Amino acid sequence: MATIKELTDIIVRFTEERDWDQFHNPKDLALALSIEASELNQLFLWKPAEQANREKVKEELADVLNYAFLLADKYKFDISQIILDKIQQNAKKYPVSKAKGTAKKYNEL
Amino acid sequence: MATIKELTDIIVRFTEERDWDQFHNPKDLALALSIEASELNQLFLWKPAEQANREKVKEELADVLNYAFLLADKYKFDISQIILDKIQQNAKKYPVSKAKGTAKKYNEL
Amino acid sequence: MATIKELTDIIVRFTEERDWDQFHNPKDLALALSIEASELNQLFLWKPAEQANREKVKEELADVLNYAFLLADKYKFDISQIILDKIQQNAKKYPVSKAKGTAKKYNEL
Amino acid sequence: MATIKELTDIIVRFTEERDWDQFHNPKDLALALSIEASELNQLFLWKPAEQANREKVKEELADVLNYAFLLADKYKFDISQIILDKIQQNAKKYPVSKAKGTAKKYNEL
Repeated sequence: MATIKELTDIIVRFTEERDWDQFHNPKDLALALSIEASELNQLFLWKPAEQANREKVKEELADVLNYAFLLADKYKFDISQIILDKIQQNAKKYPVSKAKGTAKKYNEL
Repeated sequence: MATIKELTDIIVRFTEERDWDQFHNPKDLALALSIEASELNQLFLWKPAEQANREKVKEELADVLNYAFLLADKYKFDISQIILDKIQQNAKKYPVSKAKGTAKKYNEL
Repeated sequence: MATIKELTDIIVRFTEERDWDQFHNPKDLALALSIEASELNQLFLWKPAEQANREKVKEELADVLNYAFLLADKYKFDISQIILDKIQQNAKKYPVSKAKGTAKKYNEL
Repeated sequence: MATIKELTDIIVRFTEERDWDQFHNPKDLALALSIEASELNQLFLWKPAEQANREKVKEELADVLNYAFLLADKYKFDISQIILDKIQQNAKKYPVSKAKGTAKKYNEL
């Protein structure tokens, strides 16, 4: 199993070998991420969740992660750190005592 | 630095403690991911890439990753494996010889 | 030039003739609208605005409008009324004296 | 009931009075449209379609239409014409005989 650091290196090398870095300003990377997220959603359109094609979900989710890792690299974010920081922040915002079983506040996450 | 497995465990425990798993069918998780991707894009709206607020980019990107990890866990995907598989697939689709420096085909990625 | 009412009638008839109304619950219609908006954005990815293909912009924007009209019809909203109501609301939120030339507050629109 | 032309004039005047036209290049307008579409979708997140707040749907749909009209105006598209053209195109792509009652091909619309 590759680490986050190894995956990032592989993804970055892939784009560098193709000289694609010239297109990868953060604004367009965020847009690309959003477009892949939309393609992921398309797999669920007009149908219940369980009818989505698992193989295609895998591919579209990988595309989302690809751009998320590229964007993190662009800003030199440590992916594991920003996830842990956000969870800590959410833990304060949604204490178990208040948030348990309700999607109400959660919706504004 | 936490591993992908450790991060996933932390994220899953966070939602379980709040009984939020009941809301987390794959269709809504994909939708939530897309909404967070859109909030990330909002940080770049009406401005050039370099004027986006770095701290907020960090938070919104973490939200995207949070849902990406939850969705992967829901399908029991190995995140590092699906990323590596997709890169291999893209390497065939965009060989360096053809793809170098052009965003043309890349746009359809 | 067709009126909003005439366009809505044509769009609704198109879906009824194909028995597609069964798929058109508001949640999936909103999702479809979002997916079309994303396809519209894809035309601008990795390039400056003026390089987007005008003909394709036309088609994707039409797809967005198609779902916007279907969703409005589903809720029996009067499209011209909801647009006028929102403008009135925005006029209060963004008075000319404060909003002129700044995208700051506007960003939260 | 206002016509499409009247609505467009009102929307354009609103942005001109605030000098917001400087931000309204087609790429950012498309992005804004997509962000509003996402806010519309957020109203349906974690819940069945019928639990979405009707008043908020009205507002977010109006925001989507607002940017769709601004983008159409930017390109000098005739909104009723582009909708009618797309329907004609879709009628060829999805003839009633083949498309009736199936979301299969429709999903790729």
